[in-house]
Amino acid sequence: MVSSFPFSTTQPVRFTHTDPASYVFFPRYFEMIQGVVEDFFTLGLDQDYAELVMRQGYGLPTAHTECDFARPCRLGEQLTFSLYLEKIGRSSMTIVFIGSVDGLERLRAKSVLVAIDLNNEGRPVTIGKELRRKLEDYQNACPPIPDKPGALPG
Amino acid sequence: MVSSFPFSTTQPVRFTHTDPASYVFFPRYFEMIQGVVEDFFTLGLDQDYAELVMRQGYGLPTAHTECDFARPCRLGEQLTFSLYLEKIGRSSMTIVFIGSVDGLERLRAKSVLVAIDLNNEGRPVTIGKELRRKLEDYQNACPPIPDKPGALPG
Amino acid sequence: MVSSFPFSTTQPVRFTHTDPASYVFFPRYFEMIQGVVEDFFTLGLDQDYAELVMRQGYGLPTAHTECDFARPCRLGEQLTFSLYLEKIGRSSMTIVFIGSVDGLERLRAKSVLVAIDLNNEGRPVTIGKELRRKLEDYQNACPPIPDKPGALPG
Amino acid sequence: MVSSFPFSTTQPVRFTHTDPASYVFFPRYFEMIQGVVEDFFTLGLDQDYAELVMRQGYGLPTAHTECDFARPCRLGEQLTFSLYLEKIGRSSMTIVFIGSVDGLERLRAKSVLVAIDLNNEGRPVTIGKELRRKLEDYQNACPPIPDKPGALPG
Repeated sequence: MVSSFPFSTTQPVRFTHTDPASYVFFPRYFEMIQGVVEDFFTLGLDQDYAELVMRQGYGLPTAHTECDFARPCRLGEQLTFSLYLEKIGRSSMTIVFIGSVDGLERLRAKSVLVAIDLNNEGRPVTIGKELRRKLEDYQNACPPIPDKPGALPG
Repeated sequence: MVSSFPFSTTQPVRFTHTDPASYVFFPRYFEMIQGVVEDFFTLGLDQDYAELVMRQGYGLPTAHTECDFARPCRLGEQLTFSLYLEKIGRSSMTIVFIGSVDGLERLRAKSVLVAIDLNNEGRPVTIGKELRRKLEDYQNACPPIPDKPGALPG
Repeated sequence: MVSSFPFSTTQPVRFTHTDPASYVFFPRYFEMIQGVVEDFFTLGLDQDYAELVMRQGYGLPTAHTECDFARPCRLGEQLTFSLYLEKIGRSSMTIVFIGSVDGLERLRAKSVLVAIDLNNEGRPVTIGKELRRKLEDYQNACPPIPDKPGALPG
Repeated sequence: MVSSFPFSTTQPVRFTHTDPASYVFFPRYFEMIQGVVEDFFTLGLDQDYAELVMRQGYGLPTAHTECDFARPCRLGEQLTFSLYLEKIGRSSMTIVFIGSVDGLERLRAKSVLVAIDLNNEGRPVTIGKELRRKLEDYQNACPPIPDKPGALPG
């Protein structure tokens, strides 16, 4: 289990991510975000993601995503993603990803992931008790999702 | 210029797009959507996209995107994207992309693209007169954006 | 079946292919080459590639590849790939891909693809009679593989 | 500078790397290999790769690559790449990459990278003294490149 909250991972912006303007090409952020989910499950929740997909036959496809790209990221920068659980539903979860460099927010995404049974034509399934407990524990241990930079106080 | 509205392109779902469940991995849709924008400019508006970026030094990065993935797409399916201009701003445009197979909607994305000057630290620039006229002509010639399947009438 | 030989496809160099130098990032060529194989099977040999993988349970992974990148390709260029069958083995085939722009060679790759049974732990399988006949017909109908530009006559 | 030789990095096989057979799709290995080069320069040679490209205006494109994919890699496996310098030329270097899981070789690639001047139409440039010395020191400190598994003794 994670020992600090929210769960965070840092990676360098690589050549493979960048476009002719030397900025990260936006679909690459979604590849990174998928990697953050995998690490969150495997390292953060102690629920091996590959085992979930390959052996247990579950999938966690993204049914909805939205993202604000506030400031671009460039080759060589160290990009940190933090993961917040906004909502845990019966068979879905809403995750907020904040990408930042040196503490300054560059992008913020929100995705809805749905748990499906790959052996039953991809039908949604109820999130199991043990995984639900882990998700709830994580959600409770996390600080509140920070306001967007520049957002007015509520 | 395009002779039918909305501008549409069709491509097969390829091995490179698909994940272990044989579905399209969602970041690949955003790669495809970027390609649709490039074709829309080059073929639909007769404004060569590469020329815009490489010679004129303009960029059209995506500042915001959101997407509903209603139904998955599988290897070998023919995926058609249609492009609607929802809004033309001073230096931005809001585009709706509808991805469908055999006329059935699979995903719908909405992106905000911002025109920037790559030679001026990526600052936003006003969309030029000629390009704006082309965009407005296109917007006027398009049918209204169809309701989402299952959406209630307004 | 194809009506002209070698089988060729043309595609624009897209934003998604290019790196900070505005050149195609070399792994993208391998993604393109995979697409050429898919089109060659589906359009050139009238053997639907997706059907082969998804329904028949065969795979055609690349066991070896090598590529010379003679000249870079840039955003917006029209890149044509031609496909030559160099060798048809019991369970493998050796394919030469020549990528060119305006008839000038930019890259040349050679790959060995192995036919495997996805339902039998990915073990190699003998290429079936019908597919073998189609491959041989194609090989016989193709002109010889052109010499590399700058290569000395044999 | 690295303290162990050869320079190695390990990463999990991710969803973004894998194909409908749950194996790594081969172009993704080349994306990984590019990342290994970046880390080798930045972490192994103490020559920041991004700084080289972005500030100094040098490029290190791959002019040739070849790869044997001996055994596939699957989602969740920990893939380690080791980097060997086979040859240091005037303006190029030949690098051997060995990818292994639990010490068992899965793939082996050899690439020729050419140093070019991005501000001089991408013309090759002589590798500078300081970088050359670092490369030579690294080459001298490395053990010999291991034989391929199954290869006959010379």
